[in-house]
Amino acid sequence: MRTLRDDPADAEVPSHKLLIRAGYVRPIGPGLYSWLPLGLRVLRRIEQVVRDEMAAIGGQEILFPALLPRAPYETTNRWTEYGDTLFRLQDRRRNDYLLGPTHEELFTLTVKGEYSSYKDFPLILFQIQTKYRDEARPRAGILRGREFVMKDSYSFDVDDDGLQRAYDAHRAAYQRIFDRLDVRYVIVSAVSGAMGGSASEEFLAESEVGEDTFVRCLESGYAANVEAVVTTPPAPIPFEGLPAPVVHDTGDTPTIATLVDWANTAGLGREVTAADTLKNVLLKVRQPGGDWELLAVGVPGDREVDDKRLAAALEPAEHAMLADEDFGRYPFLVKGYIGPKALLDNGVRYLVDPRIVDGTAWITGADAPGKHVVDLVAGRDFTPDGTIEAADVRDGDPSPDGAGALVSARGIEIGHIFQLGRKYADAFSADVLGENGKPVRLTMGSYGIGVSRMVAVLAEQHHDELGLRWPSSVAPFDVHLVIANKDAAARTGAGELAAELDGLGLDVLLDDRTASPGVKFKDAELIGVPWIVVVGRGWSEGAVELRNRFSGETQQIAVDGAAAAIAAALA
Amino acid sequence: MRTLRDDPADAEVPSHKLLIRAGYVRPIGPGLYSWLPLGLRVLRRIEQVVRDEMAAIGGQEILFPALLPRAPYETTNRWTEYGDTLFRLQDRRRNDYLLGPTHEELFTLTVKGEYSSYKDFPLILFQIQTKYRDEARPRAGILRGREFVMKDSYSFDVDDDGLQRAYDAHRAAYQRIFDRLDVRYVIVSAVSGAMGGSASEEFLAESEVGEDTFVRCLESGYAANVEAVVTTPPAPIPFEGLPAPVVHDTGDTPTIATLVDWANTAGLGREVTAADTLKNVLLKVRQPGGDWELLAVGVPGDREVDDKRLAAALEPAEHAMLADEDFGRYPFLVKGYIGPKALLDNGVRYLVDPRIVDGTAWITGADAPGKHVVDLVAGRDFTPDGTIEAADVRDGDPSPDGAGALVSARGIEIGHIFQLGRKYADAFSADVLGENGKPVRLTMGSYGIGVSRMVAVLAEQHHDELGLRWPSSVAPFDVHLVIANKDAAARTGAGELAAELDGLGLDVLLDDRTASPGVKFKDAELIGVPWIVVVGRGWSEGAVELRNRFSGETQQIAVDGAAAAIAAALA
Repeated sequence: MRTLRDDPADAEVPSHKLLIRAGYVRPIGPGLYSWLPLGLRVLRRIEQVVRDEMAAIGGQEILFPALLPRAPYETTNRWTEYGDTLFRLQDRRRNDYLLGPTHEELFTLTVKGEYSSYKDFPLILFQIQTKYRDEARPRAGILRGREFVMKDSYSFDVDDDGLQRAYDAHRAAYQRIFDRLDVRYVIVSAVSGAMGGSASEEFLAESEVGEDTFVRCLESGYAANVEAVVTTPPAPIPFEGLPAPVVHDTGDTPTIATLVDWANTAGLGREVTAADTLKNVLLKVRQPGGDWELLAVGVPGDREVDDKRLAAALEPAEHAMLADEDFGRYPFLVKGYIGPKALLDNGVRYLVDPRIVDGTAWITGADAPGKHVVDLVAGRDFTPDGTIEAADVRDGDPSPDGAGALVSARGIEIGHIFQLGRKYADAFSADVLGENGKPVRLTMGSYGIGVSRMVAVLAEQHHDELGLRWPSSVAPFDVHLVIANKDAAARTGAGELAAELDGLGLDVLLDDRTASPGVKFKDAELIGVPWIVVVGRGWSEGAVELRNRFSGETQQIAVDGAAAAIAAALA
Repeated sequence: MRTLRDDPADAEVPSHKLLIRAGYVRPIGPGLYSWLPLGLRVLRRIEQVVRDEMAAIGGQEILFPALLPRAPYETTNRWTEYGDTLFRLQDRRRNDYLLGPTHEELFTLTVKGEYSSYKDFPLILFQIQTKYRDEARPRAGILRGREFVMKDSYSFDVDDDGLQRAYDAHRAAYQRIFDRLDVRYVIVSAVSGAMGGSASEEFLAESEVGEDTFVRCLESGYAANVEAVVTTPPAPIPFEGLPAPVVHDTGDTPTIATLVDWANTAGLGREVTAADTLKNVLLKVRQPGGDWELLAVGVPGDREVDDKRLAAALEPAEHAMLADEDFGRYPFLVKGYIGPKALLDNGVRYLVDPRIVDGTAWITGADAPGKHVVDLVAGRDFTPDGTIEAADVRDGDPSPDGAGALVSARGIEIGHIFQLGRKYADAFSADVLGENGKPVRLTMGSYGIGVSRMVAVLAEQHHDELGLRWPSSVAPFDVHLVIANKDAAARTGAGELAAELDGLGLDVLLDDRTASPGVKFKDAELIGVPWIVVVGRGWSEGAVELRNRFSGETQQIAVDGAAAAIAAALA
């Protein structure tokens, strides 16, 4: 092994810098890394923890090729849908192949081919395998590579209850895996309530360098992707005593900011903020196989429409903002002054933020240039077609569980569990004979863990300013034995101590180089084996030093019986 | 798991049929296979044996990507040389990549990058990795796939002695590996003496379905690739008393057969066979970077020039038979009547088979149409430029070690050890600082084992008419426990016995299906776990049956203490 003194020039995150400096991985090309001996040992230990826990829930390990023929991916349309992210190639006969980014198709085909009866289920198959994705921006070393190791498993059941049990078993197994790996993580709902709260959850490792944003409630532990946050609506307000709507000439006020400025100088008798205005955003939406249709989304003027939340709410439909040329086709849409009246009068589907409950009064467009309406009351003056979770989520918003405020955080996706249902079974007509003698279509769950990414996640979460610090469950070695004494007897004794520790079942990294003690200590701290044993000046007085890399604590151990004492301390 | 009753239609060799029927692998595409749970367990156990023995000789395990950038393979020209066998692809930025068929370039670059001093050597690095080769004819299931698992290791040394030590260590490690795996194999010299007898050896598993031909001497155990066989020359014959050469008019005799016919009717006073004639074959040869030059090869007329032996003898030069249009450029070459005189008079390089020693008399061409010379004596009437090992090797030829006759056999290449020398170090200028303070170029050895192929090799060598039979070292399970008794107590007892065996550290495959005993026994024989325990009719009398899958022997074991007794029998 070889450590480097300087950070690599292109490394932007701590794990990337440290894994290279400490000799765990080496770049070969963009998003492509070699695993050096230290890194490979950590990777293999993580794999083993994952394998153990998958076996414990009855998972059977298999292994598919990474090089796959095009046909199955054509059947599911993913040959095309994957776009540039798929590595495609041809063989010498000009047949199309791909490098598997994920293996739903192969798992489904295998189960369809091997099994024929409900008696063969439930079934969980998994593999720990090298995957390929041609990421547009590979980044942060092995955090987002183009060749990486994933555990992917699939559950197959003949009914929804079975799927739920398999999902729950995976969820519990993932918790055990991540606990054993000593990773700090949260489980976030990945989709909103519409699909059922537990149909898709992500395991995110907490990390400032993460690419995923999520929100959490520190009081209750609630956590969710922003797509999955359900807005807490205020209580409706009785209409009684509310002022009547009045249309005002507001001049050139096509934006919320100009409208608020006008309102605060118009003598309305109260201070107005953007939250008092109602902004109507025009979209076009297309269901799969359908035509484009208009959709208006109304949100309080202090919030933006969050495109990811909007997409999740509209799924499986696709959507696009209404372009200027489209506006021209609808003369009743007066850009900058669109109000509920014109939308509803002209049959435009109109969905609003859940905060726009009955009795709330809004300043909004009056459907004519330079005109807005004040005190337009929801439920009295207009009735939208429904609500939509499309407004952005902000720090301070109430947690859906009512326990406190939401705060946003960043995370790295380390696991994803997902009730696929019958999507792939439908694509391949994967039926088996049911208990009643009739064919029954299989239902599937899909469950992934980023195995190679986990090496970086652990490096990210556990390092300090001196270097890496591995949890015992994944450390490349149990003990790093540093010889910091040139005396021949000490060197010989250190070798014997290493052999004794090895005999006790501990993996020992012995640094017997002729380098200076300072260089060796620095390397030991950088490499991050959790326990460091120093055979140093104390040797002649009959003592070695045992250091804990996490706490920094040291203790003197008598040379006599040192191996047993060290093993006891580690246990 | 699922067994199949019938052989797959496209399977031509026993291992392929059985591995599919018994549920070890499944085809995904030409030369692409999925590993089902049983197959993956065998594969992993083989990997572990290889890993152990590589670690035992100081090998350090690393792992390179399979997806590799073009540049290093451009440097060594293998991007082109590999031809259609290389899977090539482009990423989204249109940069060229390949799927690694072998990793010499990456190992060399890694060592060049990591190490700088002679003190860092000797060094052995290895990986157990998925490789890709777009074989023209993938065949025999996993025996020759397009995605396969290989162990490849490389030794790096600063001098030739170091390389020899690394080579010897690998040779011994390979013997231990193949012995532990219970594979029948021979070690064959892979190149002729010119490069040094031990510079390249292949480990061939003995198998009739093998693609490699080799020759062996049953008396001495000598074995070699045909390329490596060294001809035993006869003793020279004194010239004294040998008749003088006479040119004859032989009519239309351009072939050996017509020449022999003529000789036996020409009244030469002796019976003539093809072995008495000297056939001169004209080639053109080009050294790397050089021009094409003429070469004539003389062999006894009863032998053909073996193209593989010729190529090995001429390496690194390339060669081609002289085409008809080329003959026209050399008027002294009279096709069908070419003799040594015209060759030597016109400065054509002339190499002969080692059997053509001084004093041997030949019937050969006289360099004119319809004319041959009889009794042309080597060393007296012509003196070739040297000898060449180009004539074919035949059953019955004397073994080079003089112990007996050679016989040919077929084998499957399972390992190859090779002293690469400085070829790749030269390509990448891989130098380190030597002990004397001056740069020293590294020298390398290259060592491979076909890991996934070994699954098929073992299936090929150990199966019988009933199915597979795995050596204990690689069996997917230690014990196959068959419940052949519908009694509830027997079923419960079998489950408890399985748990006890598991508790003793044995891997147990428990067949608790409701299928008939006959179906289960057939499956057990097909699957080939080395020990089968039957909980059957004897259960009520307090006995289970223990069967050895190799010998077919059975013994009755008392239910009381059965687990310990079975464990003892297995040990």
